[in-house]
Amino acid sequence: MAICSISVVPVGTGSTSLSPYVARCHEMLRGTEGIKYQLTPMATIIEGDLSRILEVIADLHGMPFDEGAKRVLTTVMIDDRADKQLTMEGKTGSVEKKLGA
Amino acid sequence: MAICSISVVPVGTGSTSLSPYVARCHEMLRGTEGIKYQLTPMATIIEGDLSRILEVIADLHGMPFDEGAKRVLTTVMIDDRADKQLTMEGKTGSVEKKLGA
Amino acid sequence: MAICSISVVPVGTGSTSLSPYVARCHEMLRGTEGIKYQLTPMATIIEGDLSRILEVIADLHGMPFDEGAKRVLTTVMIDDRADKQLTMEGKTGSVEKKLGA
Amino acid sequence: MAICSISVVPVGTGSTSLSPYVARCHEMLRGTEGIKYQLTPMATIIEGDLSRILEVIADLHGMPFDEGAKRVLTTVMIDDRADKQLTMEGKTGSVEKKLGA
Repeated sequence: MAICSISVVPVGTGSTSLSPYVARCHEMLRGTEGIKYQLTPMATIIEGDLSRILEVIADLHGMPFDEGAKRVLTTVMIDDRADKQLTMEGKTGSVEKKLGA
Repeated sequence: MAICSISVVPVGTGSTSLSPYVARCHEMLRGTEGIKYQLTPMATIIEGDLSRILEVIADLHGMPFDEGAKRVLTTVMIDDRADKQLTMEGKTGSVEKKLGA
Repeated sequence: MAICSISVVPVGTGSTSLSPYVARCHEMLRGTEGIKYQLTPMATIIEGDLSRILEVIADLHGMPFDEGAKRVLTTVMIDDRADKQLTMEGKTGSVEKKLGA
Repeated sequence: MAICSISVVPVGTGSTSLSPYVARCHEMLRGTEGIKYQLTPMATIIEGDLSRILEVIADLHGMPFDEGAKRVLTTVMIDDRADKQLTMEGKTGSVEKKLGA
């Protein structure tokens, strides 16, 4: 299991609003098996097998083109561990536990 | 008001655990006036004046050195609008509204 | 054709040096057909079909695990245009032309 | 001395071309003392004191607003070492040396 954050930004659309694209991404994620995901104010975070995540990245990156965009910039960060099961909940929980202590 | 995500990663510490550093970042943010912030599984998100955010970035980036790290990689994304008041809550709310519709 | 930048960072290796990993990445890229690539001080830049680029990202991200790393953080930015052939040379050339003018 | 990569992207301008903004950034960097910088196909790389770099980030991020943009997304990665003098030339040289060996 890996965790990745992804931000998909269409360039040159003439609108400063990005939320329609983010909403469309989440509609696509809703129908995607084998992953968990979470909306944050700066990126969408996805948990799953790395190969599955890479397929999802390709789909989300391609979406704005289907909506008419002519250029897309996608930023991704992948976090992956071999020594421990990595989950979104585990990552924030581990920090919150330290903060609460 | 701008919003930024920040990820601070010490390199060469000998430990795969990053949560002690993230927890330390959040302790610093607790005592910082003029900003809002939020923990996510991949980054910490900060809302505030851009000049304030840049000061906070410098502080958070410098922290692992104080803890003994010899190399630090910090990744930041800044989102800034001149046409609308940008808030963390407003950004996710705008997407959730479209998804709920 | 898309262009992407990639930075692969092993966490917890006990060494602050990243160049052995970057060199290993470039040895892998040397033997990879269908792409162009370029070393920069902060990332490696790759030009090619998006599907090929995603395969290469998976390979480069996986490499530090083969070298014994237990955690890897990979940061990727993908730039993709539907209205124009995108090349590394074209992108910098376009800026240099404007600066020279 | 730290090294950072920066990518400044105006959103909603109606044009897919980013090179005019990148060229404007480099005109600004030309007149900036105390730093070295380098154009790459995906980002501009800056070498200098961290406090100087943060000032430059603020200036470059603000530039598209001066040119009429209403939203700007800026992505930054900072690499900083306490155990070694970090330079753009040193970083690529270290990799090239390993590849040549």
